Amino acid sequence: MTTGPAPAFDAGFRRNFAALLAWRRDVRRFRPDPLAAGQLDRLLDFACLAPSVGLSQPWRFVLVETAQARAGVISEFEAANARALADYSGDRASLYARLKLAGLREAPVHLAVFCDEATGQGHGLGRRTMPEMLVYSVVTAVHTLWLAARAEGIGVGWVSILDPQAVATILAVPPGWRLVAYLCIGHPAEDLAEPELARAGWQERESRCREVLRR
Amino acid sequence: MTTGPAPAFDAGFRRNFAALLAWRRDVRRFRPDPLAAGQLDRLLDFACLAPSVGLSQPWRFVLVETAQARAGVISEFEAANARALADYSGDRASLYARLKLAGLREAPVHLAVFCDEATGQGHGLGRRTMPEMLVYSVVTAVHTLWLAARAEGIGVGWVSILDPQAVATILAVPPGWRLVAYLCIGHPAEDLAEPELARAGWQERESRCREVLRR
Repeated sequence: MTTGPAPAFDAGFRRNFAALLAWRRDVRRFRPDPLAAGQLDRLLDFACLAPSVGLSQPWRFVLVETAQARAGVISEFEAANARALADYSGDRASLYARLKLAGLREAPVHLAVFCDEATGQGHGLGRRTMPEMLVYSVVTAVHTLWLAARAEGIGVGWVSILDPQAVATILAVPPGWRLVAYLCIGHPAEDLAEPELARAGWQERESRCREVLRR
Repeated sequence: MTTGPAPAFDAGFRRNFAALLAWRRDVRRFRPDPLAAGQLDRLLDFACLAPSVGLSQPWRFVLVETAQARAGVISEFEAANARALADYSGDRASLYARLKLAGLREAPVHLAVFCDEATGQGHGLGRRTMPEMLVYSVVTAVHTLWLAARAEGIGVGWVSILDPQAVATILAVPPGWRLVAYLCIGHPAEDLAEPELARAGWQERESRCREVLRR
């Protein structure tokens, strides 16, 4: 592990980093061509640099490759999406039905990311009053992978229209593993600066979410 | 919002981004001098570029400035930390007692980040089977702010040795707001490439957390 002074990041880097954040996007339209050799391994290495409570590193990765496992997940998504659609009515239901919410059929890589809730790593530090810190650590690993992928021109889509327990069963993961994110990963089929849901008229960005209370 | 082709990130940017991830650190030792004018506002702008389920943008920010509010939080931390220490015994207890776990007294900025669990934004999209996506969205905002701060040479420490409900009460936040992160923000007093908990002998990085199951 490197020691010495931390690197200083210059204005050019910060400008590009701001562009990375602005262009990250949740991608649902993929080209089917595979990632470059070694690319997914590199992204997983980056993910493991994420912060974790007590250095517990509770992220667990499952690469979903077989046609059978993928079909099982797609079937779960379609059932969950149909149930979600049934919750809406009128114009909102029509709009929901038109949304493209996942790229499960096209994406060359399906990566499921779990939290090992049974891990002893970290010796419980920082989790006594906020046990949810363990899953939060996995979320930062997912987000790290997402940004690192985008920096290589690769798109990531986070599919949450899934029953986490059903996915755990399909993938036969060890007991105590909780699904945090099911990711579609691949080359984006289009570049969009605007979030897909804003473009589709589902939800705009709201400036009041940027307000700050002072206490 | 910009349209057109997404920016291409070059090898130099990606190398620096990798360094940013490697040097992020959870900072617990701060210099007391304030951030530059406008710096916190900029970091909050970046945080709001984070992904959110259904574009719900459920992050809510509270800047904790008064001596009274800070003293209340510090008192909560000390009580929670004493209870945590009581859970350990022997060498592990001695080691815990020596750890520096928060920079609450020195950090010039205390920022509490909540999730508005009552928000109607996003119209429930993506939350039916995974309602936890709402807090996960807030975690990605915290992580975005953390990385953006580090890119400006600013350190962030995430304090989770706190009772979330007690902090919500001290800060008198609206009903439905759940504490996700209590952050100390400021200039780091030292640069460390190694996680503090690894350096102190609490927990090492484990390469087996990088393993991938295939299904």
